[in-house]
Amino acid sequence: MRIGVFDSGLGGLTVLRELLHQFPDCTFLYFGDTAHLPYGSKSPETIRSLSEIAAHFLAAQGIDALVIACHTASAWAASAIRQRLSIPVLDMIGPTLETIRTSSLKGPIGILGTRAMIRSQVYPAALQQIGARRVISQACPLFVPVIEEGLMDNPICQSVLQSHLEPLRNAFVESVVLGCTHYPILLPQLREQLPSCLEWIDPAQAVARSLRSLRGSAPSSSTAFQSPSVLTHHRESLQRLYHCWVTDDPAHFMQMSAVFLGAPVPRVQLMGPLEPPVVVNR
Amino acid sequence: MRIGVFDSGLGGLTVLRELLHQFPDCTFLYFGDTAHLPYGSKSPETIRSLSEIAAHFLAAQGIDALVIACHTASAWAASAIRQRLSIPVLDMIGPTLETIRTSSLKGPIGILGTRAMIRSQVYPAALQQIGARRVISQACPLFVPVIEEGLMDNPICQSVLQSHLEPLRNAFVESVVLGCTHYPILLPQLREQLPSCLEWIDPAQAVARSLRSLRGSAPSSSTAFQSPSVLTHHRESLQRLYHCWVTDDPAHFMQMSAVFLGAPVPRVQLMGPLEPPVVVNR
Repeated sequence: MRIGVFDSGLGGLTVLRELLHQFPDCTFLYFGDTAHLPYGSKSPETIRSLSEIAAHFLAAQGIDALVIACHTASAWAASAIRQRLSIPVLDMIGPTLETIRTSSLKGPIGILGTRAMIRSQVYPAALQQIGARRVISQACPLFVPVIEEGLMDNPICQSVLQSHLEPLRNAFVESVVLGCTHYPILLPQLREQLPSCLEWIDPAQAVARSLRSLRGSAPSSSTAFQSPSVLTHHRESLQRLYHCWVTDDPAHFMQMSAVFLGAPVPRVQLMGPLEPPVVVNR
Repeated sequence: MRIGVFDSGLGGLTVLRELLHQFPDCTFLYFGDTAHLPYGSKSPETIRSLSEIAAHFLAAQGIDALVIACHTASAWAASAIRQRLSIPVLDMIGPTLETIRTSSLKGPIGILGTRAMIRSQVYPAALQQIGARRVISQACPLFVPVIEEGLMDNPICQSVLQSHLEPLRNAFVESVVLGCTHYPILLPQLREQLPSCLEWIDPAQAVARSLRSLRGSAPSSSTAFQSPSVLTHHRESLQRLYHCWVTDDPAHFMQMSAVFLGAPVPRVQLMGPLEPPVVVNR
């Protein structure tokens, strides 16, 4: 089975890591739209347009399923992509909602994400339909810069965590959704900020479960959450990674991929060119 | 005189603000490449390609001079743009170097900027040629997110300032270049972190001086540095702003423009469309 995975950049690699781990017999094609990152601060129209281009590019390479490994794109572009592609399209949000729906916890739930994802209101709207759990949505615009700059051990990270997590702390949330594929990298620091009994929901796990249902095969032996820092380097898995494309700075992507994937991607191909601006009436 | 001004987004508005103030008889055309911001984390090739597109777009509108109101684009794309345009092209770095060269201060100088601008080594290389001042270059990747998220009064800002400014403090710098057009917004907070006798060099002032030389006219009565927070709203000046184009989210640009310009831009036109990715060999 050939599976396409796309994100605006590096974050989707945390999803790819999980899928490589759970689907050792699949081939993965990863597209990181690094020339246009971050999607999280863009308009819905632009997010949709960029996501459609990425989805079509991967579809044209011949894939059996597509994973939108970006919450922002999942929130704003999943429907548009499904309408245009004839293969199964998995986004980050649907499987996560299913995880929440079947959870035994019914207390307040926190949703962390980018500005654009939080603005979409996709989680509060869907959660209102499936039950009466109180939802606390929190945009965390500084998490991605802190992660990408490798400042997880800098005092800046503590200030950012304290500021962004305060509303969740005050609401005594019982579980928290890591609603951006970058955030699992921060999990050790996040755990220190909130009560230890809290349930952390990693959508990558939920997407892996959905992909397994899609394949109709038996569960893998290892589905427990593992933070990137404790994941052993799985170089053998990475050798199976068929191809990886980015739209800018492949050297930086390759270097940073080790943080997100556990080991650097074996090879990256650069895409282009960039578009000329043309005045349009939207 | 019609002057084109471009930046990856909002930062260039701090330069436009200064130019509107000092050149009340000119018409300004502003281009903010908001679909591709930030330039500061992109590769030199992409910065050059995007900057050339922006420059050509403004040139095609009929301008007498172009101001590259972005240090990252100035560092990587100014030469390429000059080779292709027949009008005068002012970048942020040349005029700033001239200000430093003619300064009476000869002690250590700090350069603050984005990762891409600092990586270009443009200031240390040029300063080595004009004298023996010790240069301390410091990338400040968290400044732009802090400013754009309006966190200037949040404890996050204090942590970010302390972390990013430590090397300058330890080197006992005598003057500091605000090497990103966002940074003047942070000047009040920056001033609190370093000795009050320090000279802060705002390249927007330097660019205005160069533009005045270009016009061959007498100096304006007001050339003293004014921080945005003390600038009175100059709505009359803004009415002269002929046009403003962005490549994404004009509503957000208009809302945020008040922070950078002192008052919101009167109108913004959206550009498009976005490019399809095509595999190329660079």
